Amino acid sequence: MSLDTRVSIAEAEQLVKEAFLRNGVKEAVAESVSNALVAAEAEGQVGHGFSRVKDYLAQVKSKKINVDAKIKIEHPKPTSISIDADYGFAYPALDQAITEGALTAKEYGSAIVSIFNSHHCGALSIQVEKIAKQGLIGVMMANTPKAIAPWGGKDPFFGTNPIAFAVPRIANDPLVIDLSLSKVARGKIMHAKKVNTEIPEGWALDSSGKPTTDPDQALKGSMLPIGEAKGSALALMVEILAATFSGGRPSNEASSFLDPDGDPPGVGQFLMFIDPGKDNGSFYKRLEKLLIDIEEIEGVRLPGNRRLEVINESSKLGLKIPDYL
Amino acid sequence: MSLDTRVSIAEAEQLVKEAFLRNGVKEAVAESVSNALVAAEAEGQVGHGFSRVKDYLAQVKSKKINVDAKIKIEHPKPTSISIDADYGFAYPALDQAITEGALTAKEYGSAIVSIFNSHHCGALSIQVEKIAKQGLIGVMMANTPKAIAPWGGKDPFFGTNPIAFAVPRIANDPLVIDLSLSKVARGKIMHAKKVNTEIPEGWALDSSGKPTTDPDQALKGSMLPIGEAKGSALALMVEILAATFSGGRPSNEASSFLDPDGDPPGVGQFLMFIDPGKDNGSFYKRLEKLLIDIEEIEGVRLPGNRRLEVINESSKLGLKIPDYL
Repeated sequence: MSLDTRVSIAEAEQLVKEAFLRNGVKEAVAESVSNALVAAEAEGQVGHGFSRVKDYLAQVKSKKINVDAKIKIEHPKPTSISIDADYGFAYPALDQAITEGALTAKEYGSAIVSIFNSHHCGALSIQVEKIAKQGLIGVMMANTPKAIAPWGGKDPFFGTNPIAFAVPRIANDPLVIDLSLSKVARGKIMHAKKVNTEIPEGWALDSSGKPTTDPDQALKGSMLPIGEAKGSALALMVEILAATFSGGRPSNEASSFLDPDGDPPGVGQFLMFIDPGKDNGSFYKRLEKLLIDIEEIEGVRLPGNRRLEVINESSKLGLKIPDYL
Repeated sequence: MSLDTRVSIAEAEQLVKEAFLRNGVKEAVAESVSNALVAAEAEGQVGHGFSRVKDYLAQVKSKKINVDAKIKIEHPKPTSISIDADYGFAYPALDQAITEGALTAKEYGSAIVSIFNSHHCGALSIQVEKIAKQGLIGVMMANTPKAIAPWGGKDPFFGTNPIAFAVPRIANDPLVIDLSLSKVARGKIMHAKKVNTEIPEGWALDSSGKPTTDPDQALKGSMLPIGEAKGSALALMVEILAATFSGGRPSNEASSFLDPDGDPPGVGQFLMFIDPGKDNGSFYKRLEKLLIDIEEIEGVRLPGNRRLEVINESSKLGLKIPDYL
């Protein structure tokens, strides 16, 4: 994959969209998928960006991704929304989740949305940031194909099961936190495999439970969780909210997001929306005070600051795009 | 502190309650505080159990804990509940939070409760388990006096900012997860100080930023977060939900939960309630399948299993109670 051509973000969205249109994906879906992949690429999350296009297209061809998905939305209770993604792409379901969740939270104060029969949801930062841009606090969790062994075990069972959080700010971009519960994001290992580089020791174990620097062996083995038993417990919490509660397939039964073989992964996502509430003004004052206090500490940066710099750079310089696009 | 006398859980609750009654705490409040402390002791969380009685009483005497607190509850939106604990004990406010939150979530599908002007909330496991015993999924977060340095810094700023989660099960006790974002719970270091033992290296740094095994030096220094920058980011998320959102005092400005001096800590707590929803039956089936799959893995135990064993043991054998009670 050569990455020599630079294009603007808008051009990249168009190019990626066209690649999906050429393969039988409908206009609105192609646009949603393209926007999410380009946004991830533009913020430096290359494991959730252009590198996914070929994998997605192969899954469209093998019908592992349902291009005729009919998204079904139910409100089992006023603030609880359940979305069946019908084994299509996750992004159009997430778009609807955010629209419905935000409307509900503005009316009721909070809302939860769970998505099932879903697929790879990319960079969670993109989704929670959209919630924050509507003036709401956003939390998102997702389960993903098995990667982390439960503490004490040696075979993968939980996904890297990311947690993301965003909060709106008055005069700044939202504060965005996005982290997987493995020591590093699985996307980083997948990217290392794609560009043929080694990974540092300590990120993962091979299939026999030994440390490895080979990304291929790491992907066949298991990822180490943050905080030992604590990270494993958090991965179980995410598993229960994102998969068990939603009706999504558990991580240990979900097929790969990468290759075109097998059943659809059918994983789940969980989103929470919180209205900062009646005393909005004081909330934002308290938030700015807290964040400024943190930024003033020597050696400390706010989470997500590097992300904003990369987005800014991408907007100015454009994105390096693979030739096949 | 001698711990030679064993009494039943009911007797312990009575003894602890009487200690508070003797010091001018009202009946209902004394009962709520006593039940929470004894429950923590009975599940082995000794840092949140009997060891707190003397500290609480000293704070009652110095008026750092307001024994005349009038809890005020507001519903700024239908599913968003805000509780002013009025600088009293946290437990009576938590009791009301759980009653109101559960009622709301059963009607609307979800609810959030934030508590401010609050105090030490003890073992979060006790609170989320109560939510699960009402048939709801519970999540709780709390901010606590500064203990963890933001990643890259060396002085404490965030509390140990615990996260807890509980989910109801059909034929078993709820699954309960409760963890602080420091590598170990601060309560463990405080207990080590009380019983005069060293702590293992790797738990904390002293005030100059060096590793220490002296619990006293560790309490004056900073705790290490799980997952390096990731744990620090999660601590910020908890800070924003439990303190900034609720209107509680930030961890870096909250006074000690332990000594009788200074202003009240005024921290906050955040609770989320989720109704498992319309397809309740399938939810519980999926949950049992997941938990059984985990328990069948060699070397792996469910989080909270040890806790249930200790509770069982405490019920059978009674609790060792300090002589002064």
